[in-house]
Amino acid sequence: MAKGSSISGFPEWLPSERVVEQRVIDTLRTIFELNGFIGIETRAVEQGSSLLKKGETSKEIYLLSRLQDVGNENDTPVEERLGLHFDLTVPLSRYVVEHSGDLAFPFKRWQIQKVWRGERPQEGRFREFVQADIDVIGNGELPDHYEVELPLVMVQALEELRQYGLPKATVHANNRKLSEGFYRGLGLTDIEGVLREIDKLDKIGGEEVARLLEETCGATADQANACLELANLTADNGADLTDKFNALCEIHHIAFDSDAYLLAREGLDTLAMIVDEAARLRPGSVIADLKIARGLDYYTGSVYETFLEGADSLGSICSGGRYDNLASQGSKKYPGVGLSIGLSRLVSYMLHTAGAVASRVSPAAVMVAVWDENMRPACNRIAQALRGRGIAADVAPTAAKLGKQIKYASKLGIPYVWFPADATEDGSDSDEVKNIVTGEQVAADVQSWEPDTLYAQQTVTIQ
Amino acid sequence: MAKGSSISGFPEWLPSERVVEQRVIDTLRTIFELNGFIGIETRAVEQGSSLLKKGETSKEIYLLSRLQDVGNENDTPVEERLGLHFDLTVPLSRYVVEHSGDLAFPFKRWQIQKVWRGERPQEGRFREFVQADIDVIGNGELPDHYEVELPLVMVQALEELRQYGLPKATVHANNRKLSEGFYRGLGLTDIEGVLREIDKLDKIGGEEVARLLEETCGATADQANACLELANLTADNGADLTDKFNALCEIHHIAFDSDAYLLAREGLDTLAMIVDEAARLRPGSVIADLKIARGLDYYTGSVYETFLEGADSLGSICSGGRYDNLASQGSKKYPGVGLSIGLSRLVSYMLHTAGAVASRVSPAAVMVAVWDENMRPACNRIAQALRGRGIAADVAPTAAKLGKQIKYASKLGIPYVWFPADATEDGSDSDEVKNIVTGEQVAADVQSWEPDTLYAQQTVTIQ
Repeated sequence: MAKGSSISGFPEWLPSERVVEQRVIDTLRTIFELNGFIGIETRAVEQGSSLLKKGETSKEIYLLSRLQDVGNENDTPVEERLGLHFDLTVPLSRYVVEHSGDLAFPFKRWQIQKVWRGERPQEGRFREFVQADIDVIGNGELPDHYEVELPLVMVQALEELRQYGLPKATVHANNRKLSEGFYRGLGLTDIEGVLREIDKLDKIGGEEVARLLEETCGATADQANACLELANLTADNGADLTDKFNALCEIHHIAFDSDAYLLAREGLDTLAMIVDEAARLRPGSVIADLKIARGLDYYTGSVYETFLEGADSLGSICSGGRYDNLASQGSKKYPGVGLSIGLSRLVSYMLHTAGAVASRVSPAAVMVAVWDENMRPACNRIAQALRGRGIAADVAPTAAKLGKQIKYASKLGIPYVWFPADATEDGSDSDEVKNIVTGEQVAADVQSWEPDTLYAQQTVTIQ
Repeated sequence: MAKGSSISGFPEWLPSERVVEQRVIDTLRTIFELNGFIGIETRAVEQGSSLLKKGETSKEIYLLSRLQDVGNENDTPVEERLGLHFDLTVPLSRYVVEHSGDLAFPFKRWQIQKVWRGERPQEGRFREFVQADIDVIGNGELPDHYEVELPLVMVQALEELRQYGLPKATVHANNRKLSEGFYRGLGLTDIEGVLREIDKLDKIGGEEVARLLEETCGATADQANACLELANLTADNGADLTDKFNALCEIHHIAFDSDAYLLAREGLDTLAMIVDEAARLRPGSVIADLKIARGLDYYTGSVYETFLEGADSLGSICSGGRYDNLASQGSKKYPGVGLSIGLSRLVSYMLHTAGAVASRVSPAAVMVAVWDENMRPACNRIAQALRGRGIAADVAPTAAKLGKQIKYASKLGIPYVWFPADATEDGSDSDEVKNIVTGEQVAADVQSWEPDTLYAQQTVTIQ
């Protein structure tokens, strides 16, 4: 991120870095829209009551107060104050309920916006960052085929980013029902507690998780061990997944006709469907990985995390799941499934690890040189003619020495400098244009000249 | 804006309305980049000290507090708290100073982002809205040709929006030095006060402004009258402007060799240059209008407001000016000139008055029908093939009756429904595609079929 950014946790890109972020956003939007997702933007603020809704989140929140109310903030209960959204899923749920009469269901939407987390500054984590989300929300019910289609759209989007240096992404899927059924089958009851501890596996390791399961979730050593065995289970096809899971149930005496197994089986069948259908559509893109837990989030079925090859330390760059209880109105429910890319972190990785660079800072392909300030109107007309033909053009800021003008173009990465007829060094009576990268200079007509394909557009490449 | 938006002042668009907003944003970005402006995004928050800097603004501000700090907010002085930015100019000034070593000057940037104003809710004004800004910032100095080029870029952008129903826009320009010189020539000293009252002219009328000038700025009836005469002066060319202004000075005994006149003359010459050069490049786009004051803002020279033909009640939709003292570092100054479009208000006008409508809600051109859930993998492959050829495609959510599937496509505005071979009603062995707007149905090959140009893309038209 930009050097010297003055508030910790609030990243800000330099212009050349912003080119990469903008390219990532444009790419994601293109893929989302190709797949029929509808773009929306929600307001940045929600009611405190909505942000604090029990069981939905453990996120830290920024509350707002008007400058005029400073000193009297506490006259208003937190629930009635406004706060900045910490994700795009809670706002979506509210939006869908609020506008249900105006939407067609299932409602497939994409949304790329900033979110804020009121973390302590010293933790060095982003407190403002961009998320890129896709979700589909049903009215009353939601077919489970979306639970495989949505991660595949994200895989397609991440594949598209590989040209800018992103490594191959693999979605790791699990299902809350599968985990819950298995834990209940073992005789455990603090399901949320177990999920919370299992979620720490990558960070603190199996031994420590086992200790925590015993200490905080009332597990015996055997139960804790069984939880770890489940977490270690992975499979890339449904049959293998089912065999391995059933074997684990047999070892731990979970009967196939128990309520616990039947609950697990529901999740198992969905997960098996997901990996099999994903293998058909995009082989190697999705695996079953039973350690995926998603902490204390609002998910009720499928859960996903996405990892980049060779970038384990980055953690999951695209996470989500199915949530059946987040949005409701009276007895009507709006179940949803969605995934969210942590875009700022991804861009940071692309810039600083994958070596993505903008071909130039300025969108302009041409800078028109100005020999004399009296010529500026003529120079403006040349630039205007180029722009009219879709060629982005700038005009030199001052009629400085030509070398200084070329240096300005060069600093902005503008590849062509245009010399109006009476400004060419040899006094030529035709306009000329010089590619300052290759040094090539040719006579040019403003009505027909085209930049070489290689230099026409701002692009992003890998260093 | 979306019906029933639940927090007053925080507009939120329905999906079909968002299509129009997105189109406006895309159009502005295209024009800004064609003109060589560099896109940046700044963080949404600034230090309180930066937002409250004396003399910069009278804007209302939202301050942030972490949920964990609720009750202890007042332990931190406002200057050290974080607040949401109320415009994009103050953040730009801070960004430029912070990153000056990494930027090429003059730095031309575009920025389209949300801003927040902590207004009282009952006023019914937007408290969150999108601004679209262009500015150019110099390092130490900034040539005045930018003072005509920047408003012209905005005119070009607004011209481009006329295809979506926007009326013709005219920039009204003035110059602070011209006004100040004239007021001083009259013997007035409370220049800020006079500008503040003159700024109210359109809202409260000349009589009331004259009364306020006498009451609050110590003006005599004659002085107040002279201020109104100046405010009534308009001109569409430099010679006419100069003649009219000089005549007014003679009437009010402002000597052409006085310091006051020389100050006014500086502004007059810049303003004359602006209207003349604008007339050459885009006739009829910019006039001199000496009532433009821009209230208590940070401008030091040129000021601009932009009005739409037949939409006077909307007020200025694009305002700005030159500011020489906003950004500085030690003795080094970064003078700038820029304009800002109040995008949310503009989109609101386009939707509700100009009749701009999205051709469809969904970006998809095609929905693949699903005859039977077992066929879904085949349907997904059809959609994938179309997407691979750049045709946005959706797949029916369920294998419901065909009528229900077509109704879903129709509600989303998706023009084509694709019938996979064994799903066509007549049992045809070739795929068929139906345009559900025209009723036309033809055999189609997923590798070669193209939608009619009219139906290929989501567009915005005027109702």
